[in-house]
Amino acid sequence: MTETTSTTPVSAEQAAREQALTERVLASFNHTPNERLKEVMQSLTTHLHDFVREVRLTEKEWGTAIEFLTAVGQITDDRRQEFILLSDVLGASMQTILVNNPTTENATEATVFGPFFLEDAPYIELGGDIAGSAHGQPCWVEGTVKDTHGIPVPGARVEVWEADEDGFYDVQYDDHRIAGRAHLFTDQHGEFRFWGLTPTPYPIPHDGPVGKMLEATNRSPVRASHLHFMVTAEGLRTLVTHIFVEGDPQIEIGDSVFGVQDSLIKRFEVQPAGTPTPDGRDLKDKNWARTRFDIILARSDEQQ
Amino acid sequence: MTETTSTTPVSAEQAAREQALTERVLASFNHTPNERLKEVMQSLTTHLHDFVREVRLTEKEWGTAIEFLTAVGQITDDRRQEFILLSDVLGASMQTILVNNPTTENATEATVFGPFFLEDAPYIELGGDIAGSAHGQPCWVEGTVKDTHGIPVPGARVEVWEADEDGFYDVQYDDHRIAGRAHLFTDQHGEFRFWGLTPTPYPIPHDGPVGKMLEATNRSPVRASHLHFMVTAEGLRTLVTHIFVEGDPQIEIGDSVFGVQDSLIKRFEVQPAGTPTPDGRDLKDKNWARTRFDIILARSDEQQ
Repeated sequence: MTETTSTTPVSAEQAAREQALTERVLASFNHTPNERLKEVMQSLTTHLHDFVREVRLTEKEWGTAIEFLTAVGQITDDRRQEFILLSDVLGASMQTILVNNPTTENATEATVFGPFFLEDAPYIELGGDIAGSAHGQPCWVEGTVKDTHGIPVPGARVEVWEADEDGFYDVQYDDHRIAGRAHLFTDQHGEFRFWGLTPTPYPIPHDGPVGKMLEATNRSPVRASHLHFMVTAEGLRTLVTHIFVEGDPQIEIGDSVFGVQDSLIKRFEVQPAGTPTPDGRDLKDKNWARTRFDIILARSDEQQ
Repeated sequence: MTETTSTTPVSAEQAAREQALTERVLASFNHTPNERLKEVMQSLTTHLHDFVREVRLTEKEWGTAIEFLTAVGQITDDRRQEFILLSDVLGASMQTILVNNPTTENATEATVFGPFFLEDAPYIELGGDIAGSAHGQPCWVEGTVKDTHGIPVPGARVEVWEADEDGFYDVQYDDHRIAGRAHLFTDQHGEFRFWGLTPTPYPIPHDGPVGKMLEATNRSPVRASHLHFMVTAEGLRTLVTHIFVEGDPQIEIGDSVFGVQDSLIKRFEVQPAGTPTPDGRDLKDKNWARTRFDIILARSDEQQ
């Protein structure tokens, strides 16, 4: 197989035969009752067939693709979602985020959701600690939630979650721990503050088929260091995003799921041990860090 | 969601943002050591992103797609290959067959392989019966295997397999039966003959996610009646194909996996009970049928 395969000329008769098949498949969806489903299936068919024809996919490669998808299915369970990983590393997740979250005035940009969110993360008071048993450098995170007119949003629900310093989320351990995640609510000034951990880079789970694909394509499985946010408030568009750590070399190398947006890169200022903390907490001989993330939520009706 | 979604205008700024993401993902594959893998991944990325952008895929639809693929993975095991079914009903399998088996002179056309082939089907003598314990109308099948110059091919291996009259292949039963499949070899004149069963229409397995998709799109899961062949001979291109039954109404309705080619539709002549059989076999009070399939194999070096 040479690299010129895709440009191998195809006879007009052959091209017509291939096109006729694509049209038969498109027509098979003509009686779909739901117009939107019909549109999605026909667009999917067009692009799938274009892909097969463009690369002149061999039968062996087709078999490899079936085996790959089967392996992705086999490793997927309640705790491991390899299809989301696959969508992530192909940039399809981030593209879906972009399509659905067009930049609106000055609203904070969205990024990928990732597979590690839990619905029932513990509630903490403002200024509380999300770390639980997770280890890492303590990090003070504060900011405000406002709407696009600059009006503070009190009572906004702020969900935060992150990996520990070893690069693992709580759900990746076998002991059912809940750590490195919590939810809290903004105060009457729209402000929030909490103790988390300074984010560190970690690889996405790469012991499965998606990891093999990254290895075969010489790609890093490492995600740029980040802290996840999901912010919800009545009448405002839900924001799913991260903040990234300024100076993290992985931003240059390339975030494995393409989640980085310049506006989401924040300065994390490391404080030497002994520096007084914002809330008087005694961290003894530990360094700590602080960062600020001011969030602007679009109105719900600005969703598309 | 309206059916005009795909034509919703996207601002130039938004389009540029989406395109920039696609280009970042394409660039991530630039260091793939294998040029062919690089080509395939970059084409896949382009078409996947084009699909997401063209239909303006919603985050909920993305979630539905992930759930669908997860369900396809969960139902797949050693006996059930839902990813192949998915590829089949989207016409991707047949398109791959077309791309790899361009019509060559007068060679017999290929069609889909399907998921029901077994490597170790029993050997039968010429004129033997492939049915085993499978029920159905006996059908005498005969033909010759030749090359494109009309030279008979002695010793060609002919694998045949088919469903029983209830529409099931042996491997779909739980009792490990082997029935409705065999292999035989052409004689010194390139001729073959055997007893099989007259093919009947049957649905592809439609109790899983692929079946749900067919239902939601108002598509028939039924395959046009067919008998599978795989023919291999030294120096000649392996042919994987079916023959279809002239007059089967499912050919008009649409074969669920798009396998029908006009040249593969054969007349199956039903013989009243008592009609003498070609080999003198006594079928008592049973009707039987007969058909002829003359096969022409392309040379191996005609494989692209």
